[in-house]
Amino acid sequence: MHSPSELLKHVEQAIKETTYPDYPASLYEPISYIMNLGGKRLRPIMLLMSAELFNGDLKAAIPAAMAIETFHNFTLIHDDIMDNAPLRRGKQTVHEKWGNNTAILSGDVMMVEANKHITNVEVSVLKAALDTFNATAQGVCEGQQLDMEFETREDVSIEEYIDMIRLKTAVLVGGAMKLGAIVAKARNEEANLIYQFGENLGIAFQLQDDILDVYGDPEKFGKQVGGDIISDKKTYLRLKLQQSAQPEDVKQLNAQITNTDLADKVIQVTALYDQYEVKQQATEVMRQYLNKAFSALEKITVPDQNKTELIVLANLLMNREH
Amino acid sequence: MHSPSELLKHVEQAIKETTYPDYPASLYEPISYIMNLGGKRLRPIMLLMSAELFNGDLKAAIPAAMAIETFHNFTLIHDDIMDNAPLRRGKQTVHEKWGNNTAILSGDVMMVEANKHITNVEVSVLKAALDTFNATAQGVCEGQQLDMEFETREDVSIEEYIDMIRLKTAVLVGGAMKLGAIVAKARNEEANLIYQFGENLGIAFQLQDDILDVYGDPEKFGKQVGGDIISDKKTYLRLKLQQSAQPEDVKQLNAQITNTDLADKVIQVTALYDQYEVKQQATEVMRQYLNKAFSALEKITVPDQNKTELIVLANLLMNREH
Repeated sequence: MHSPSELLKHVEQAIKETTYPDYPASLYEPISYIMNLGGKRLRPIMLLMSAELFNGDLKAAIPAAMAIETFHNFTLIHDDIMDNAPLRRGKQTVHEKWGNNTAILSGDVMMVEANKHITNVEVSVLKAALDTFNATAQGVCEGQQLDMEFETREDVSIEEYIDMIRLKTAVLVGGAMKLGAIVAKARNEEANLIYQFGENLGIAFQLQDDILDVYGDPEKFGKQVGGDIISDKKTYLRLKLQQSAQPEDVKQLNAQITNTDLADKVIQVTALYDQYEVKQQATEVMRQYLNKAFSALEKITVPDQNKTELIVLANLLMNREH
Repeated sequence: MHSPSELLKHVEQAIKETTYPDYPASLYEPISYIMNLGGKRLRPIMLLMSAELFNGDLKAAIPAAMAIETFHNFTLIHDDIMDNAPLRRGKQTVHEKWGNNTAILSGDVMMVEANKHITNVEVSVLKAALDTFNATAQGVCEGQQLDMEFETREDVSIEEYIDMIRLKTAVLVGGAMKLGAIVAKARNEEANLIYQFGENLGIAFQLQDDILDVYGDPEKFGKQVGGDIISDKKTYLRLKLQQSAQPEDVKQLNAQITNTDLADKVIQVTALYDQYEVKQQATEVMRQYLNKAFSALEKITVPDQNKTELIVLANLLMNREH
């Protein structure tokens, strides 16, 4: 068993060793650029942890880990175009630096690179790995589409919201962990349990993100606290408030959309959240998903010590302040 | 052996039988839309002909044919965004109808659909099929990038141009035919020969396109004759002229870029093409690639009658007037 920080070194090493063609330079430079912007590499690390959970060989899991990390970074390039985002990890986004057309096309060829990585898994698990990889990729695209649609929809339900974050974020965590199980040749049932662990953890993680965006410590949060409120984002907190608040309070919430004093807007909306205790409710739902995750992990029949690193990491993630 | 028109029916049937999820509707509607805009389905037909050349089973080749056709249509969605094209086969392009963001994302999920198709080939040929499919997809992206770059470059050589059309167009024809050979379990050497046939035929086809765009019969050509001249496209004819013309004639060619009388522009540039006999030179180079194609086909050791349909189709394609 390796610790997450040891696994991170393996992931970084694999990224360093992956080379792309030189020509056409402007097609491949964005790939190296975004792959080297850093990041926590959580998905490939969790894939490798899943492989080790089932006593799989680390080396054999690297192609799948690279496929997941490459795919994830490809989605960042295309998402940033759609979101018109100028910055990614504090640096210029690919479309800002190279233009939209090159960003579209570099993203496309990056998905091909991800596909090439996944074909390098052992041939006996290739079909299963591809099926999981493709299902994961499809879910992520669906989640992004729903996220975009929700921006202009006024009738998003909490169920729809949870399903959107499941697709956009959690499916990729679950899919990464299932791939780890597949390359470790775990039984199908076990692979599905670790998928459940990853998916439910992913949903809990995203709900926590919604909470931290409002209630995080500004010193530790890393981005602006209240960003979701300022952009009127339909988070769990907001949808819950809309659902449970008195009509006059919903009116007051909607009135804040046009409040140009942004500091005041954050104060006003947060006060409504406090009044209706939506933080507590969000925390409760987050705990439910976390429990589901751990209950799936419990059912996996491997020695308890195999699970230790994973439990430590999950708790670390869920007690983060940023 | 089936004729191309019989194979077309099989392809259309497979397209009809392929269903996509209902939700999110706006993610999947564009896929059905573009897949049903029609088209000659040349690539999947040639894939199936290649499979039959090697006595492969038609049914076993359908997943690969669907992968190629789905991938090709995905590239059309993204290319149309990059080219800012309003129409595709006389109908609104996907980005015109659904907006750029949905067109990017529908294209992405369509590439996943193509990947799903290719995983449905027989497992014994899966790895080989994936390697060829991914290499093909990568080449097509490189070709599109080069095509975009050439628009703003003034020093494109004829060799670079041929390499660009090879990547953008011919690699997909060669890759489709190689996939047909792979699913028919042809030997590696034979698969590479049919790839050579397809790739060289594809280059010849594209050179013929350049010629027809200037010298095609306006009644039969289908699109505006002279379109490449009007848009100052760097075709084989234009690059050849730039290379061989006297300085004053190159000057005259460049002066036409700002000619707003488009009918006159077509007449003036065509006159230069005639003067330097670039049509004859393009035709000669086209014939060389065609000869390369047929010489690769000759080397394939299957009964001559297996090759008949393919030779008929290739001659038909190369004697087209549109």
